[in-house]
Amino acid sequence: SRSINLALIPGDGIGPEVVAQGLKVLSAVLPQDVKLETKEFDFGAKRYHATGETLTDADVEALKQYEAILLGAIGDPSVPSGVLERGFLLKLRFLFDHHVNLRPSKLMPGVSTPLKGQPEIDFIVIREGTEGPYTGNGGSIRTGTPQEVATEVSVNTAFGVERVVRDAFARAQARPRKKLTLVHKNNVLSFAGHLWTNIFNKVAAEFPDVTTDYLHVDAATIFLVTDPARFDVIVTDNLFGDIITDLAAAVSGGIGVAASGNINPSREFPSMFEPVHGSAPDIAGQGKADPTATVLSVALLLRHLGYEAEAVRIEDAVSADLSERGDTTRTTEEIGDALAGRVAG
Amino acid sequence: SRSINLALIPGDGIGPEVVAQGLKVLSAVLPQDVKLETKEFDFGAKRYHATGETLTDADVEALKQYEAILLGAIGDPSVPSGVLERGFLLKLRFLFDHHVNLRPSKLMPGVSTPLKGQPEIDFIVIREGTEGPYTGNGGSIRTGTPQEVATEVSVNTAFGVERVVRDAFARAQARPRKKLTLVHKNNVLSFAGHLWTNIFNKVAAEFPDVTTDYLHVDAATIFLVTDPARFDVIVTDNLFGDIITDLAAAVSGGIGVAASGNINPSREFPSMFEPVHGSAPDIAGQGKADPTATVLSVALLLRHLGYEAEAVRIEDAVSADLSERGDTTRTTEEIGDALAGRVAG
Ligand SMILES: CC(C)[C@H](C(=O)O)[C@@H](O)C(=O)O
Ligand SMILES: CC(C)[C@H](C(=O)O)[C@@H](O)C(=O)O
Repeated sequence: SRSINLALIPGDGIGPEVVAQGLKVLSAVLPQDVKLETKEFDFGAKRYHATGETLTDADVEALKQYEAILLGAIGDPSVPSGVLERGFLLKLRFLFDHHVNLRPSKLMPGVSTPLKGQPEIDFIVIREGTEGPYTGNGGSIRTGTPQEVATEVSVNTAFGVERVVRDAFARAQARPRKKLTLVHKNNVLSFAGHLWTNIFNKVAAEFPDVTTDYLHVDAATIFLVTDPARFDVIVTDNLFGDIITDLAAAVSGGIGVAASGNINPSREFPSMFEPVHGSAPDIAGQGKADPTATVLSVALLLRHLGYEAEAVRIEDAVSADLSERGDTTRTTEEIGDALAGRVAG
Repeated sequence: SRSINLALIPGDGIGPEVVAQGLKVLSAVLPQDVKLETKEFDFGAKRYHATGETLTDADVEALKQYEAILLGAIGDPSVPSGVLERGFLLKLRFLFDHHVNLRPSKLMPGVSTPLKGQPEIDFIVIREGTEGPYTGNGGSIRTGTPQEVATEVSVNTAFGVERVVRDAFARAQARPRKKLTLVHKNNVLSFAGHLWTNIFNKVAAEFPDVTTDYLHVDAATIFLVTDPARFDVIVTDNLFGDIITDLAAAVSGGIGVAASGNINPSREFPSMFEPVHGSAPDIAGQGKADPTATVLSVALLLRHLGYEAEAVRIEDAVSADLSERGDTTRTTEEIGDALAGRVAG
């Protein structure tokens, strides 16, 4: 009999509320013969304040025992900016080699967008997750003085770029439109830009049925608001991906419905699935958070583990729920119940 | 009697067409007693192909003789990406220490935006222009091999950050809302992020009447499409500024109306004014280009040189022209004539 062995990290703010609903939908969609085992971890602001720890070596070893991780949100205003980001979230992405950061954007019927004319939006962004300006390389001298110099070093390797570019080509090839756009800033960041562009062109030759193009990141933001239908699959660097996926989420229904997967395709280490939104401490504990982004992240998790039919059931349920949602205000739990009901039905 | 001594760089693609109209409006708005002297320079793709030069030492010395530069657009698909950008545009910005890159965004009445509900948009972005990831620091080893490593180094100095932050506070203080937002990514780029944040907070203490806040760059892109009215003045790093000003242009009427100034406030070297749009070779020479962005850049130029009343006359003329424009299609020259007529009137 089959089983799924899942690490749950509810985290801070609205994290616990949305993870509870994600888990509810997951339980509802799984066939009877699949045994779901979960274990909850207490990472986040509370533990940091109590112990000073964000993620210990023992924590990392413990997490390695699981097939996948479902994360709510990590972050609280009481913790200095960067401590939990670098000490927990990015640390896990790097240690578990989550080099494919997968972020789909789909404007479902009936969902509101800030854009006029309800454009067709259905694309995925593959953001590199383990290199670029996110490596923490850099430093400062004469810190705090009028002579301070602070540097940030973006590190890009042929190894790291090629594997994510290949992954993106394969995903583009599997979609009906088969179109892949490289987003970078190769006219200014020439060293990294040439590496990305050369590898992109080299791999393209092996995927002759995939249409390719290139956009500078600044131009990409223009198209995301004037012609988002032009995008099918985007592959980009860690920082550009961070920026354009928030914009992509904003135009395709908001971060309340934006899902993401931090994926290690080799499955050597567990992949981690999380809503794009943060911990939203201002509405925490009030049942106001929309669990849809977490539920869609559960669909990505299931697809990663090979449960394609169940992933599609969740996505269809969300799509139906959103198109019938209208202006009704429902609690976090009511939305979770509705989605659980749909996938079970 | 007064005089303005202007270097003109029409450049590539639609550059010459829009600069001609900018010059026409400039001549029309200037009082009789101001003598306008201009000299045209041939920088761009044509010269690069003919001579291999982008900007020589002698060119730089020649340009230094002028009070300001009006640039159309530089760039052509026949030149490899980066050659003219780094060899001309960025070279000038760095040599002439254009550390205040000023980019206003104002959605004028009657102008179409991709956003629903015609939001109020009236903010300026102060983009740092001489540091950050634009310094060209970095390199690659084992280039072209599977072991290539390419780096890009963002260089940030207390000197460079403080002067642009001070400029932004002064500009915010001079506006009715007096609000300044710092945009960075200090939770990930901690070295540069701390420098920016510390200096921002230090200078803020000297401007107690200016309201301040902070946004991560990814969150800023969300607000630019969901609530652009929240912005008054934004100060940000060179690369983040590049990205968000293209997005800002897209939501506030498009790059057809987005102006910019590469400003050296000390006036030690000439400042350079240019439309945000590029050379658009696909429509070059057809009279289809909108010269409005160039005309608005002329207004920024006049303001920089102390001709405030004339700058306002141009901005009012553009505003009136745009609100009466409707769906009529006019040529580049017709728009230039209309604007020249209005400012002269
Ligand atoms: C919280 C932060 C470190 C993170 C990032 O920058 O990657 C977030 O913005 C995201 O997109 O997942
Ligand atoms: C052409 C390019 C080098 C330039 C930049 O990145 O600064 C442009 O995008 C701009 O915004 O002026």
